[in-house]
Amino acid sequence: MATKELKRGVPNGRYKKLEAELCTELIAAQERLQKARFPTLIVLGGSADTSAASNALRRWMDSHSVAVCAFEPLSVEEREHPEYWRYWLSLPPKGTIGIYLNGWYDRPLRDLAHGRSDAAAFERAADRIAAFENALVVDGALLIKLWIHLDKEARQQRIAALEQNPLTRWRVTASAREGLQYYDEFKRAADCLLHKTHISGAHWQVVEGRDRHYPLVVGRAVRDAIGQHLAAKKNRPKPVSTGWSPAPNVLTELDMEKRVAKKEYQVLLERYQGRLYRLTQQARRKGVSSVLVFEGADAAGKGGIIQRLTAALDPCIYQIIQVAAPTAEERAQHYLWRFWRPLPPAGRMVIFDRSWYGRVLVERVEGFADKAAWQRAYGEINDFEQQLTDHGMVVAKYWIHIDKDEQLRRFKARQATPHKRWKITDEDWRNREKWDDYEAAVDDMVDRTHAIAAPWTLVEGNDKRFARLKVIKAFCQQLEQALASG
Amino acid sequence: MATKELKRGVPNGRYKKLEAELCTELIAAQERLQKARFPTLIVLGGSADTSAASNALRRWMDSHSVAVCAFEPLSVEEREHPEYWRYWLSLPPKGTIGIYLNGWYDRPLRDLAHGRSDAAAFERAADRIAAFENALVVDGALLIKLWIHLDKEARQQRIAALEQNPLTRWRVTASAREGLQYYDEFKRAADCLLHKTHISGAHWQVVEGRDRHYPLVVGRAVRDAIGQHLAAKKNRPKPVSTGWSPAPNVLTELDMEKRVAKKEYQVLLERYQGRLYRLTQQARRKGVSSVLVFEGADAAGKGGIIQRLTAALDPCIYQIIQVAAPTAEERAQHYLWRFWRPLPPAGRMVIFDRSWYGRVLVERVEGFADKAAWQRAYGEINDFEQQLTDHGMVVAKYWIHIDKDEQLRRFKARQATPHKRWKITDEDWRNREKWDDYEAAVDDMVDRTHAIAAPWTLVEGNDKRFARLKVIKAFCQQLEQALASG
Repeated sequence: MATKELKRGVPNGRYKKLEAELCTELIAAQERLQKARFPTLIVLGGSADTSAASNALRRWMDSHSVAVCAFEPLSVEEREHPEYWRYWLSLPPKGTIGIYLNGWYDRPLRDLAHGRSDAAAFERAADRIAAFENALVVDGALLIKLWIHLDKEARQQRIAALEQNPLTRWRVTASAREGLQYYDEFKRAADCLLHKTHISGAHWQVVEGRDRHYPLVVGRAVRDAIGQHLAAKKNRPKPVSTGWSPAPNVLTELDMEKRVAKKEYQVLLERYQGRLYRLTQQARRKGVSSVLVFEGADAAGKGGIIQRLTAALDPCIYQIIQVAAPTAEERAQHYLWRFWRPLPPAGRMVIFDRSWYGRVLVERVEGFADKAAWQRAYGEINDFEQQLTDHGMVVAKYWIHIDKDEQLRRFKARQATPHKRWKITDEDWRNREKWDDYEAAVDDMVDRTHAIAAPWTLVEGNDKRFARLKVIKAFCQQLEQALASG
Repeated sequence: MATKELKRGVPNGRYKKLEAELCTELIAAQERLQKARFPTLIVLGGSADTSAASNALRRWMDSHSVAVCAFEPLSVEEREHPEYWRYWLSLPPKGTIGIYLNGWYDRPLRDLAHGRSDAAAFERAADRIAAFENALVVDGALLIKLWIHLDKEARQQRIAALEQNPLTRWRVTASAREGLQYYDEFKRAADCLLHKTHISGAHWQVVEGRDRHYPLVVGRAVRDAIGQHLAAKKNRPKPVSTGWSPAPNVLTELDMEKRVAKKEYQVLLERYQGRLYRLTQQARRKGVSSVLVFEGADAAGKGGIIQRLTAALDPCIYQIIQVAAPTAEERAQHYLWRFWRPLPPAGRMVIFDRSWYGRVLVERVEGFADKAAWQRAYGEINDFEQQLTDHGMVVAKYWIHIDKDEQLRRFKARQATPHKRWKITDEDWRNREKWDDYEAAVDDMVDRTHAIAAPWTLVEGNDKRFARLKVIKAFCQQLEQALASG
C-alpha cells in the first residue's frame, strides 16, 4: 500500500511554539472552510489511543463547528435500519468538520479480527466502505483518513505504564485491552481493510504513534489536507459528462384509455384496501419495512392515490414525507441525506411524495444539477436502493402518467374550480412547456433504475379510479411476495 | 363540563356543495396560516373512528402542510426518554398543521380504562397534559380539541354492519373491538380526563358521531377555530408582565481568589477524571442518563472545562451540543423544542454548551424575548427539568463565573495572541457593557431554577484549574448519589 508515512517527532521544548502556530493555521483553515461548500470528514483509526488526537484537534480548533462521532455496537433501533443509516445521519454539514473515531471501519475490523466474517462478507464490507466514501468525495467532500500506528511492543509498554500507576489505571479501558489481546488479528485485518479502502480521493496516511507528540503530526496533516482541498476546488476542472444514449421510449407504450366504472371501482377499492390492511398488519408483525416512492407529472393525481392507499392503513404504521425544495439544513448536506433520515423502522412504511428522483427529473431538466451530477445519480440511486433491499425492505416506485391533453384538461378544470384553484401555479405551466424533456428524463430514469427488487410501476393515470386501483393492487402483490419469501 | 356540542347533521344532497365550500374556506385559512407565526394542533379523540375525520381533513386541505400523528405503545427507544419527548419531537412547525389521533391522551385513557393506573397516577397524567398544552397555548399555538362521540348502541351497530359484509370486515380493527368491549370503562375514563383537561385556550368540543357527515362538522370547527385565532392574534393585548422582586445576590458571595497549584492540579485532575470515567461506565450499565448544562460569561472557560471533562469519557457515551442562535427550523418551533430533541438515551450523556437558559439570560438582557416571556420561562424551565429528573435523569447545571477584571484581562490576552484572536468578537465587548444586567439575570436564574434534583453549582472561574477540578468533582458527587439511590 502506497501510504504516506508522515514525518516523525518534534523536538522537545519547541512543542508549545509549534502548537501555537498550528492553532493559528487550523483556525484560519476553519474560517476558510465556513464559506466553502463542502464538509470535512476526518477518520482516525489505529492501534494507538485515537481519542488523544481527536481531543487535541478539538482543543486547537473552534469546537463549535467540530463534532466527534464514535459508534457503538448497533442498538436495537439501529438494527431496524440498513447499516449505513446511522453513518449518513452523522454526516457533518457543509463548512463544518466531523471527526470519526474508527467510523464505519470499526464493525468490519472487529468482525474480521474476531473471525466473525468470512472472505465474502469482508469483500462486501470493504466495497460498501469504498462506495460510501466515493459518494461523498465525488460530491465534493474532503475525506482525511489517518491511521495511527503503534507496534505491539510499544502498545504493551504504554498500557503497562498506565496500569502500574494507580492514578492512571482507569485509562486502560476494555477496548484497549481487547486491542492488545487481539493485536495480531487486528493488524492483519487492518492491513487488508486499509489496502482495499485506499481509494482515489480518500487515501490513508499512516502516523507513527510511538512519537508522543503524534497529535501534532495529525494536526498538520489536517491543516495541509484542508489547504490542498481548498486550492484544488478553485482549480478543479468541471467534471466531464459522458456520452449519453437515450433510453427506449416506455411512456408511449402505455394504453392511456384504460378506465374503470364507478360501481366496479367502489367494490374493488374496498377489496384491495382490505387486502392492503391485512398485508401491512402482517408486515408489521414480521418487521418488514416498506418504502414507497410516487413521482408523476403535475396534476397526475399522486396525492389522491396516496390518500386512498393510506386510508386503508393503521395510522401508526406509516408516515408521508412531502418532498419539496430542500431547506437550508438539507442544502448543507449531500442530496441523498434528507432521504436517509426518515427511513422507516421495522414493520413500518414511509411514503415519499416526490423523492430522490428529483435529481434526475426536475434538477436535470431545469439545470439545477449539472450534467455530470445527474448522470452520476442513477448509480448513486441504485446503490442507495440496494442497501434498502439488501436489508430486507420493500421498495416500490410509481410513475403516475397522464398524457398532455389530459393534463391541460385538468389544469383548466382546476382553474375553474374555486376550491381547487390553489393547486395551479405558474410553475405548473412552465413545466408543461418542457413536456418532451420530462418524457425523455422519465424514460432514462425507468431504464436505468428499474430493478427486480426495487421495481418501477408505470401507472396509466388518465382515469383516476384506474390509477388508484392499479397502485394498491401492485403494492399488495409486491408486499405479498416479500412476506412469502421472508 | 361546559363543552360545545356542535350542530348535527347535513341535509343529504347538499353535501357535495357544502364540501366544496368548506374546501375553499379551509384552503384560504391555510394560506393565512402560512404567514402566521404559530402552529396549529388538532387533537381528535373519541369513540368513533377518528381517522375518517383526519382523512377528510387531509383531502380537503393542502396536504403538504398537514401532518398526521398517531402514537403506538412506547417503543424501546422511546422508553429511554421522558414520556413527552416523543410528543415534543412531533410538534408541527409554525404555519403548519398537525393532526393528532388521540395524541397524548391515548396512554392515560388506556391506563385508566384498563385499571392500570390509580387515582394519583391519573391526576399526574392529567396535570402533565394540562401543563404541556398550556405551554404551547401560552406560546401562541392554536390547539383545537375535538371529541367525536358515538354512543354504545350506535357503535355496536356500526361495527356489526361492517362485520356482516365480507368486503368491509377488515375495517373492524383490534383497536375498534377493544373500544367496544371496554366501552363503559373508556367512557368513564374519557369523561374524567376531558373534564380535567378542558382548560383555558384549549377547550374540548364534542362532535356527534352518529351523523355520517360528521367530518364536515369537524372541518367547520377547524375552519372557525383558525379564523378566530387569527383574528384574536391581531387584537390580542400584549401579555402583562408581573411585578418582579429581584433575587438575592449570589455571585458576590463567591470567593474569586480560589487557586490550585499546577502540580496539585495535575494529580487531582487525573484522579477525578478516573473517578468520572468509572462512574460514567457504571451509569451506562445501569441505564442512567445525564444532562449537563454550562453557562457563563464570555471567556469564562466553559469550553476548556468541557474538554477536560470529556477527555475522561468513552467517546461513545456523550454528545456535546453547541448552542448558538436558532436556525430557521428551530425558530419555527417553541424555544424548548430544540433542547428536547437531543436528549440522551439510557446511560448516555448530553452536554449543553449554553442552553435553554439563554431565554432568561441573553434573551432577557437584549430584549429578544419580551418581559412576559422570560418571566414565564422560569416555570417552563422548571417543568421541563422536572420531567427529566422524574424520569431518573441526572441534571447538573454550572454557572462559570469570572469577575469583571479577570474578563478584561482575558479579553486583552486573547487579542494579543494570534491563535486565540478569533475568540474575541464585537459582541463580547457589547455584552461586557451590560455586565450588571447579566449579574442580575444570573441571580434571578439561580434563585428561581435551583432544585435539589437539578441543582445549580456556581463555579469560581478566575483560576481555570480550580474551575475544572470543581466541576468534575461536583458532577462525580452528583452522579455517585444518583447511582447509589437508583
